[in-house]
Amino acid sequence: MAGTNRNDENRTGGPAIILVEPQLGENIGMVARAMANFGLDDLRLVNPRDGWPNEKARASASRADHVIDAVRLFDTVEAAAADLTYLLATTARPRYSVKAVRGPEEAGAELRARIHADQPAGILFGRERFGLSNEEIDLADEIVTFPVNPAFASLNIAQAVLLMSYEWMKSGLEEGAAPRFTAPELVPAPKDDLYRFFDHLETSLDTTNFFFPPEKREAMVHNLRVMMTRAGFSEPELRMLRGVLRAFDHRIERGTK
Amino acid sequence: MAGTNRNDENRTGGPAIILVEPQLGENIGMVARAMANFGLDDLRLVNPRDGWPNEKARASASRADHVIDAVRLFDTVEAAAADLTYLLATTARPRYSVKAVRGPEEAGAELRARIHADQPAGILFGRERFGLSNEEIDLADEIVTFPVNPAFASLNIAQAVLLMSYEWMKSGLEEGAAPRFTAPELVPAPKDDLYRFFDHLETSLDTTNFFFPPEKREAMVHNLRVMMTRAGFSEPELRMLRGVLRAFDHRIERGTK
Repeated sequence: MAGTNRNDENRTGGPAIILVEPQLGENIGMVARAMANFGLDDLRLVNPRDGWPNEKARASASRADHVIDAVRLFDTVEAAAADLTYLLATTARPRYSVKAVRGPEEAGAELRARIHADQPAGILFGRERFGLSNEEIDLADEIVTFPVNPAFASLNIAQAVLLMSYEWMKSGLEEGAAPRFTAPELVPAPKDDLYRFFDHLETSLDTTNFFFPPEKREAMVHNLRVMMTRAGFSEPELRMLRGVLRAFDHRIERGTK
Repeated sequence: MAGTNRNDENRTGGPAIILVEPQLGENIGMVARAMANFGLDDLRLVNPRDGWPNEKARASASRADHVIDAVRLFDTVEAAAADLTYLLATTARPRYSVKAVRGPEEAGAELRARIHADQPAGILFGRERFGLSNEEIDLADEIVTFPVNPAFASLNIAQAVLLMSYEWMKSGLEEGAAPRFTAPELVPAPKDDLYRFFDHLETSLDTTNFFFPPEKREAMVHNLRVMMTRAGFSEPELRMLRGVLRAFDHRIERGTK
């Protein structure tokens, strides 16, 4: 806890970089270096394959020790994003069609606007081998993709982090550093609240016949999460929706007795 | 000679990337991969330390074999740039005050304009250890520098090539970093559907204790309607939400019997 506080105080700001199940320590180190190059320092790892700390990561970070020292570990993407109010997911391919898709430059400007308005933001990067799962993308608000050559589209994670860090830095170089977009007036809830609402909704619906037939459950959960994420509910709104669910839960319990 | 001709015929265009005395094969490979990601294929090496070909370069190029196969070797920077009409030199710090200094985005646009006008162009990248000499910078028309964190300014050559290749690709897109795919405009449902959802939600909640005490019902209905309106749900989304309500309704009916 003390360590976390100290890290938070030392932070220079900027979006959190969240690596989901990174495999190679070298890549984590190169990510840290790219972040340091462009003034980012909040690196979060979800289940790194080779554990943590990782000496290969430190070696390939080329003296970005302040980023490596401040790394935080999480068991789930949900936990890693819990304190954030705006979350981007990076993907290489257009497999997803519902969430808004931004280019890196536009995403950099949007991140700048959110953070300028004190709305903590972050970016999810997937595994070296197969990126992010659809369920992980469901946890994000919007998607970033890179304008790569379609015939040779695979960016490694250190390169993807480099480009996003670079666009973040560039977004702060505008005249007077004034953000080009304004953040939404209504502050979206921290992701933790949203994810707990997801759990509650899905658990409540499991007591009904909503997810029928069972093999459709996954797709239906996906659709619900997409629509509830896009709505951008604030904290009081999510509290009210949880109240709605509790009212149904209690009514069902009473009726059963 | 024959090989050179064949390579020229196969070129997809774009600036030449010239690495001056690169030391590590791994870096040359990562440069090739970054170039392939953004549609560049003309890689020229001036006196690579470990000679050429270099198996480490091929291994770290991750299948960017067409770039590796087309590499051309030169003894001097002058020879490597001989056919070009516009040459940029990359430096970490703007230590030079006579030549124009550009950022990567502006440099990408300038390269695009030159090449569009059939004026061959290229970019010089220096050694891993100490960059380009003043004499080498003298051979270039202008300087590119990167907007890095002054406290942590060292970009490796693969990263520098990645950023320039990315800005080259972006300069050819109509709207900056426009992504390769965009989400379909999500059309909000006709209001009639929204209002029928309101009715359904409020009727279902009337069978529970949600609206309690009764004098707060009006304000609570107002809050629910505001939030559900702001979410801008589409017709399929509202259909799904009505399905959620029906599932709760049926469960409550079953429990009551």
